[in-house]
Amino acid sequence: MTSGELQDWADRVAARDRRAMGRAISAVENGEVEAAALLKLLFERALEADVVGVTGSPGVGKSTLVEKLAAEYRRQRQGVGIVAVDPTSPFSGGAMLGDRIRMQSLAADDGVYIRSMATRGELGGLAPTAHDVVTVLEAAGCRTVLIETVGVGQDEVQVAHLASATVLVLAPGMGDDIQTFKAGVMEIADVFAVNKADRLGAGKVQQELDAMLTISPRPDGWRPPVVQTIATTGEGVSALCEAIAEFHAFGERTGLKRQRRRQKCRGRLLSLLRQRLFEQVYRELRDGAVDRWVDEVLDRRSDPHSAVEAMVRAGPGQ
Amino acid sequence: MTSGELQDWADRVAARDRRAMGRAISAVENGEVEAAALLKLLFERALEADVVGVTGSPGVGKSTLVEKLAAEYRRQRQGVGIVAVDPTSPFSGGAMLGDRIRMQSLAADDGVYIRSMATRGELGGLAPTAHDVVTVLEAAGCRTVLIETVGVGQDEVQVAHLASATVLVLAPGMGDDIQTFKAGVMEIADVFAVNKADRLGAGKVQQELDAMLTISPRPDGWRPPVVQTIATTGEGVSALCEAIAEFHAFGERTGLKRQRRRQKCRGRLLSLLRQRLFEQVYRELRDGAVDRWVDEVLDRRSDPHSAVEAMVRAGPGQ
Repeated sequence: MTSGELQDWADRVAARDRRAMGRAISAVENGEVEAAALLKLLFERALEADVVGVTGSPGVGKSTLVEKLAAEYRRQRQGVGIVAVDPTSPFSGGAMLGDRIRMQSLAADDGVYIRSMATRGELGGLAPTAHDVVTVLEAAGCRTVLIETVGVGQDEVQVAHLASATVLVLAPGMGDDIQTFKAGVMEIADVFAVNKADRLGAGKVQQELDAMLTISPRPDGWRPPVVQTIATTGEGVSALCEAIAEFHAFGERTGLKRQRRRQKCRGRLLSLLRQRLFEQVYRELRDGAVDRWVDEVLDRRSDPHSAVEAMVRAGPGQ
Repeated sequence: MTSGELQDWADRVAARDRRAMGRAISAVENGEVEAAALLKLLFERALEADVVGVTGSPGVGKSTLVEKLAAEYRRQRQGVGIVAVDPTSPFSGGAMLGDRIRMQSLAADDGVYIRSMATRGELGGLAPTAHDVVTVLEAAGCRTVLIETVGVGQDEVQVAHLASATVLVLAPGMGDDIQTFKAGVMEIADVFAVNKADRLGAGKVQQELDAMLTISPRPDGWRPPVVQTIATTGEGVSALCEAIAEFHAFGERTGLKRQRRRQKCRGRLLSLLRQRLFEQVYRELRDGAVDRWVDEVLDRRSDPHSAVEAMVRAGPGQ
């Protein structure tokens, strides 16, 4: 691809050409050779968006809430990107939930771009890819990007690092082990949404969160608001938007936003570095070399650490 | 450390000396320089254990179930290791749930070794570290290692790659989005446990799982059994052990176990390779170099991809 063609591609992304955007995101996800060069051009065109992470256990109603949040931001005339991060299937390597036919209320809206993504199997690297997808959306003029992830694993903590605000969605009836749950996730939540607020037990969840927030205040002085929502009807969604905006305003006021931007940028550089170094050696190793080392280790002729040391020695630049 | 001291350390691990084991696991987790050399010696002494992954959403009762499973394996006179993987706190960098005072019924049993672990913050690398911790436990004679993880993120899929069998724990009352939940996790489950089986809705969960397993059979021909458990009383736990043993027997019979061992070994080598390459460059970069690049990118004097290319060029061996 010539540099003129790349420029043209970047310009079409900036003009919100959906095909150009889709091709750009695919190029990023598949690690195509043009991706890095294109991203450099897109980065120049990108205005930093508010990236809102929406996370929580399966079944709490995240997708519906994200759909309604997007509609709310659209009412504010903002371009909105939605990235749904799905766990990768260990068998197929693809996103488990696939390109779900969902968020149909938004499908006809030209100002909303929705994309499912998964990690790239053996090549890994959800975090750098997600950052790059956000850059594509920013270059296409999205002022808000909603990132939906499942659960509270390391992945989600990484994706939370990429967000300027993280919404943790809870719902009544998640079991009695909520103490453990809260310990594991409260630190990533800037705003809590108690969804399905019309259900029995919503008040109890609110009370428990309030108690926890009083007992363990955050070191940065922000007290995460708890917003009751009913995603299916849209109730509470504009209050949720306001709570997110308040957090952003707090961040501006206190320097927290600046600090987060630094952390986020640092995390992006390091995860990209990790990915680049690995891909370099991985490409050199193709042709059955990994499988040969697997045999050595399985037959106990070598151990994993010795095998990897040999692979590193065989890598480029050595 | 001399090679005689290393040999002595490895011998003491093999003799189940708890202090030597604790030090070995810490050395692995902290990436200490002796770790790789020690692991080579331990690998020689390690008999491959059955590694059983136990995963599921927060609140379903995983910890209690793991405790009861461990007691069951102890009744079979097996050495048992328990590894609890906690999400890393984005603030403190440590395991969020910490060294929980739990599984107290096992604390006095010399044949059980319990350890919490988290990822190593910026250095990342849960998967290679978890593999290495399993090697330490195998060298110490554990015939079964139970690995408890939270959720269904990429982390858990990685840890599932390390398991010879994965148990997915569900509980009644997880909300109505169970179709989505199942799509995201069914593929990693070799055995389903419906815990809190005395609660309202346990029968419905069982029915839904049965229906799903009938509609979407696994490509490898294994039909994951669904076992009802009440972890708090221990009911159903021996049936769960039997179901896991049946899966292992199926794997032996069909070659699935062999295939999984290959995948697992390949995954271990690649994640270790990724880690090694990164650490090599990261060490060279210390002294504020990363922060200087962060400033360049934040001030828009550079973009992330150009910055990382420069870091790679500055790395060792170039």
